[in-house]
Amino acid sequence: MDKNLVVKDLEAVRSQSPLVQSITNYVVMNNTANALLAIGASPIMAHAVEEMQEMATICQSLVINIGTLSPRWIEGMLLAGKTAKAAGHPVILDPVGAGATSYRTQTCFKIIEECQPDIIRGNGSEIMALVNSDIKSKGVDSSESSSSAVESAKILAKRYNCVVTISGEIDYATDGEQVIEIHGGSPMMAKVTGLGCTASALVGAFAVVNRNYLQAAASAMQVMAVAGELAAAKSRGTGSMQMNFLDELYNLSANDIIK
Amino acid sequence: MDKNLVVKDLEAVRSQSPLVQSITNYVVMNNTANALLAIGASPIMAHAVEEMQEMATICQSLVINIGTLSPRWIEGMLLAGKTAKAAGHPVILDPVGAGATSYRTQTCFKIIEECQPDIIRGNGSEIMALVNSDIKSKGVDSSESSSSAVESAKILAKRYNCVVTISGEIDYATDGEQVIEIHGGSPMMAKVTGLGCTASALVGAFAVVNRNYLQAAASAMQVMAVAGELAAAKSRGTGSMQMNFLDELYNLSANDIIK
Amino acid sequence: MDKNLVVKDLEAVRSQSPLVQSITNYVVMNNTANALLAIGASPIMAHAVEEMQEMATICQSLVINIGTLSPRWIEGMLLAGKTAKAAGHPVILDPVGAGATSYRTQTCFKIIEECQPDIIRGNGSEIMALVNSDIKSKGVDSSESSSSAVESAKILAKRYNCVVTISGEIDYATDGEQVIEIHGGSPMMAKVTGLGCTASALVGAFAVVNRNYLQAAASAMQVMAVAGELAAAKSRGTGSMQMNFLDELYNLSANDIIK
Repeated sequence: MDKNLVVKDLEAVRSQSPLVQSITNYVVMNNTANALLAIGASPIMAHAVEEMQEMATICQSLVINIGTLSPRWIEGMLLAGKTAKAAGHPVILDPVGAGATSYRTQTCFKIIEECQPDIIRGNGSEIMALVNSDIKSKGVDSSESSSSAVESAKILAKRYNCVVTISGEIDYATDGEQVIEIHGGSPMMAKVTGLGCTASALVGAFAVVNRNYLQAAASAMQVMAVAGELAAAKSRGTGSMQMNFLDELYNLSANDIIK
Repeated sequence: MDKNLVVKDLEAVRSQSPLVQSITNYVVMNNTANALLAIGASPIMAHAVEEMQEMATICQSLVINIGTLSPRWIEGMLLAGKTAKAAGHPVILDPVGAGATSYRTQTCFKIIEECQPDIIRGNGSEIMALVNSDIKSKGVDSSESSSSAVESAKILAKRYNCVVTISGEIDYATDGEQVIEIHGGSPMMAKVTGLGCTASALVGAFAVVNRNYLQAAASAMQVMAVAGELAAAKSRGTGSMQMNFLDELYNLSANDIIK
Repeated sequence: MDKNLVVKDLEAVRSQSPLVQSITNYVVMNNTANALLAIGASPIMAHAVEEMQEMATICQSLVINIGTLSPRWIEGMLLAGKTAKAAGHPVILDPVGAGATSYRTQTCFKIIEECQPDIIRGNGSEIMALVNSDIKSKGVDSSESSSSAVESAKILAKRYNCVVTISGEIDYATDGEQVIEIHGGSPMMAKVTGLGCTASALVGAFAVVNRNYLQAAASAMQVMAVAGELAAAKSRGTGSMQMNFLDELYNLSANDIIK
């Protein structure tokens, strides 16, 4: 992929500081907010039905992550998603644990149907589970490689007219026709909870500044991969990895990306 | 401000280890609890209506933070606030995102009316939004400087007979008449999520040991500023900033404050 | 205790990567998930009644932690607990703040009665409060030493036919007859929020690979103590302690444990 486009998108995020609403899971909220701040965006976490229309209107994009689902939160997700979509804001879905329980899989389909997300980002198992109901996820960690999910991602993208991104050893972004591969990262990234969720949040920020969603998603994933690779090289374990990852996002230069 | 009073308050927090109840948002709970522990206080996070009367009675102060509101949590906040107030414990309100949605602004007014908080701590936008309903916050990050909010803070303090603290480049604490300025800190503090919420929690701890709430609030903000400045000097980015900030709180000496 | 058994259990966790479901409190979710990943297990956080039967069936153990209780979460805990128990999976209870409010104490008894946990892990105050209703906890931090709670732990273990573990300066695990002492750790561990909750989560992972629950609990506590001691020696304060603790879990060797 063209690294200069990534640099351009990153610079746009930093200069425009997009306001990104995340309705996400309890486990990762702190890290997601910090990652958005580190990359130059402005995060909001809010979920109550009572403020979803106002909140989704003032924010510039919406990231829905189903990691710790419950009924009232789903109501908030659907209302926010419809409001953001109607306002022309990018809507991103992170189908955490799709395939692990029918509640998760069905909620994903409900969100897809009612909110028509522009971008779906998941791991191999999750993406495959959204295409083939026979696929069972092992909880929230992927039991399928990202490369084995590329065909599913293309089907999903065509079926719902969206961009699909798969995280894994290699990351992929596809609009159903074109497939962009993103290399880099580190195996240690899968051992820090919620870096996939962070990726979805960054996709939400990049989609504000680049309405070519395929490129926006690829840029965000490339930024994740570069920051992850740089952070892993400095980290003694997963505790320092989590810290260094934020430091790398905060300091990421054009040169880091081009190299 | 008199740094010796800050030192005295800090030493009192460490020796008395006040039990501080936080009804706060999901994003910052971990950091808030760790900051309270690092400064020598003892944190409790609990929100259920079912245990609010008992909990707010055994705790020594209550910090209400509306960052991730929902109806059941508001019920818990109001019951805890009334219980704490009736017990003579300090009640602190952090009006996160006041002005961003009417749900937030109205909830703040409901809490102010029913619980009569002793101290309100917010950023410039939030404080101004509580005085002038024309002010709109850009989400949860301030779009107004702290200094531009000083007059609003004085009005708010007089109107509700409380102390108001504003975080920003310069921090301010006022009882409506006197205004204390707190200098120090670092711009990097605004790039770590929830340090404003941490400030409110520390105010809650300091208010237990010093019933002069204007001084207590100023002392807590001064401790934040010193720890933030020392931490920033050691930090490569916002990940290490978050870690170093806790280390500084934990190690903060009288000498650090006086200098 | 026999350190070789600890090494064997740790290696089994790493090779089998047990899937551990945590229904836990908002404050510690991120750290708990990261600790499980660091030790080689696979974490799931989920709480909704709507997916509890499926989730508790696919997971291999269940850790119930009552740190931030509310009615709907209790429903999820009870359904998950009964499902996991019926499936023959180990069920662990962390009675956070038992004795602080009657809501917490009564919820613990309800969980114990309906789900029959295999292992209960708490601090001194919590364990004593489950045996003697006159004991009042000071919030969620223990006001009793672990050694003063050993007799209560034995009574509790016999009464409910389970293993009981106490965290503190010395850790203890008992089945009501035998008492295993676990030495090591660091006073700094009590100043990082949620390391007790992390201990419960690790007990959940170890109980999958060793159905001798007394030994499994002791192994998990020994791993905590070793990682805590190594981390404290490298830490300038509680911020770096939290990070280093995860790094130590991630890197823990047989040699670290034997020494």
